[in-house]
Amino acid sequence: MFEDRTKKRTELGELGEFGLIDYLTRDIVYKNESTIKGVGDDAAVINNANINTLVSTDLLVEGIHFDLSYSPLKHLGYKAAVVNFSDIIAMNGTPRQLVVGIAVSNRYSVEALDELYNGIKLACDKYKVDLVGGDTTSSISGLFISLTIIGEAATEEITYRNGAKEGNLLCVSGNLGGAYMGLLLLEREKEVYKANPASQPELEGYDYILQRQLKPEARIDIIKLLKEKNIKPTSMIDISDGLASEILHICKQSDKGCNLYEEKIPIDATTILLAEEFKIIPTIAALSGGEDYELLFTIEQSDFEIVKSLEDIHIIGHITDKNSGANLITSSGAAIPLKAQGWDALKENE
Amino acid sequence: MFEDRTKKRTELGELGEFGLIDYLTRDIVYKNESTIKGVGDDAAVINNANINTLVSTDLLVEGIHFDLSYSPLKHLGYKAAVVNFSDIIAMNGTPRQLVVGIAVSNRYSVEALDELYNGIKLACDKYKVDLVGGDTTSSISGLFISLTIIGEAATEEITYRNGAKEGNLLCVSGNLGGAYMGLLLLEREKEVYKANPASQPELEGYDYILQRQLKPEARIDIIKLLKEKNIKPTSMIDISDGLASEILHICKQSDKGCNLYEEKIPIDATTILLAEEFKIIPTIAALSGGEDYELLFTIEQSDFEIVKSLEDIHIIGHITDKNSGANLITSSGAAIPLKAQGWDALKENE
Repeated sequence: MFEDRTKKRTELGELGEFGLIDYLTRDIVYKNESTIKGVGDDAAVINNANINTLVSTDLLVEGIHFDLSYSPLKHLGYKAAVVNFSDIIAMNGTPRQLVVGIAVSNRYSVEALDELYNGIKLACDKYKVDLVGGDTTSSISGLFISLTIIGEAATEEITYRNGAKEGNLLCVSGNLGGAYMGLLLLEREKEVYKANPASQPELEGYDYILQRQLKPEARIDIIKLLKEKNIKPTSMIDISDGLASEILHICKQSDKGCNLYEEKIPIDATTILLAEEFKIIPTIAALSGGEDYELLFTIEQSDFEIVKSLEDIHIIGHITDKNSGANLITSSGAAIPLKAQGWDALKENE
Repeated sequence: MFEDRTKKRTELGELGEFGLIDYLTRDIVYKNESTIKGVGDDAAVINNANINTLVSTDLLVEGIHFDLSYSPLKHLGYKAAVVNFSDIIAMNGTPRQLVVGIAVSNRYSVEALDELYNGIKLACDKYKVDLVGGDTTSSISGLFISLTIIGEAATEEITYRNGAKEGNLLCVSGNLGGAYMGLLLLEREKEVYKANPASQPELEGYDYILQRQLKPEARIDIIKLLKEKNIKPTSMIDISDGLASEILHICKQSDKGCNLYEEKIPIDATTILLAEEFKIIPTIAALSGGEDYELLFTIEQSDFEIVKSLEDIHIIGHITDKNSGANLITSSGAAIPLKAQGWDALKENE
């Protein structure tokens, strides 16, 4: 949270672009046989033996997607990479190779960028992804990170957003709303700190909630578990913008409706407590908070018996005819049309 | 060059992120059989039948890599895409799928972004590349473009930077230094315009030079020609940072030296005339100017007879032992060690 001024600072200009790339990628070891050539040529080379290549890209902007006053650079790198991997996992694929573009102003030192890269490399190690290339350049102000993940999946394994069928069960992994409460907590402590820089942030006892915001994980364990149990989701998406927005994506692309049961939405006890403290209805945090990176997916009704026994997977509703619409069925039994009020990068930040 | 104020302006917020993606990608038609799924899911899906996947990424920053006061958005999009494709071509591969990330401030209208995308799509059409996905978000200020190109090549076709052998001939396509002179010309006219906004830019007769800067092409024709003639370069790189810098990359990675003959460097007559007007030695523009996106490559001596007859390919030197160093042999016969003084994003822009 606070910069250690005793740390060594190397100006970016001392290394130059090529020197910086060499420095940042000095200790990368490739983990995938398919990685033929990584950093150091015009392009990375990935050899795929008759399997589908998946590719997804994210662009993260300082002041829009992250706030360095409470997000340490190593956490930021870790999260940026994991969030990018999550897109491949949400296709039921395995993330394999990552390319990273970074634009920074000279306000950043080499050590700061190294911290960012260390976070990215930590995520790559954990998820067995090879960092195979990138581009490093300067910006007029602020930090920009672009990540492109390449993954793979056999044709019959890929899950699209458009495969939900009427009668399918709607499932979600883990619990929701925590990442958003973590963000509110960090923003509150930032305001306290700005008002009184001598104050210490009150973050004790909130480890879990802070981790949900600062160091989320992508649910590769869930897609492995489903494979083990021979269950193939009919559609799948990861929850980046909030449950409501993601359900609407699946409904729209599958040309279906759905009933989502409020009382079935999994919310952690810490999230509920903190939501009450912030005077927020926990269901709203789950529906619209976003950034939980859990998996939302649909399965055949015939898989019900197996799925209901799986830890950390929750059945929260079912797919209906398009004309019924996408509805939240409240605890009192009322049907309310679902609306995407989640984080919308372009609408919120102007 | 000048904004037409009668054009329709739609605020970005009117569409929102998803609406904007739908709008920008509304007329994309996929051209490659390997493109299984493009825009509209967590990741694009590319099916490769036992062939190498190549991947390369670029991050372009307003005020660093481009200046919108003289680079129309459509040209910018075209150039950004072509430059990205050039990295795959420099591996002797074929560019196939592109993902684009864009971060913009609300200073930009939807129409402005559409112009940018039209340029990208024009390049994709010309080079038969499929635009398969991306990310669109907001920035605090300025425009950021990240591009990741996926290409393919058979194992035996790929050319790395490290394959140059002693005695190999050093070749370059097209001519050099033009893009840099185009940049100087545009900057001069910008200064004139700033001093007197009523003045008209004097750009007549400079079409070729301006095109070299604003609308460069990637030399996919050259790699096709070499394949036709059964010539496989032993090493290859594209010229983005200037001839000197690229030759040094090949020498360093191949662990070799070279002799580059000044009088053999191909420079267009317009480049020479304009260099004289700007009091710049044309050789310096070619060595350090950059952005020509021509191909620099090495071939076996046994291919000399075929290559010398090929239009638009020039033999400019040969590879030597590492201990001889990388030298420019001047017209007067003097040997001067080559130095990379090309464009270096991090050193130049602080």
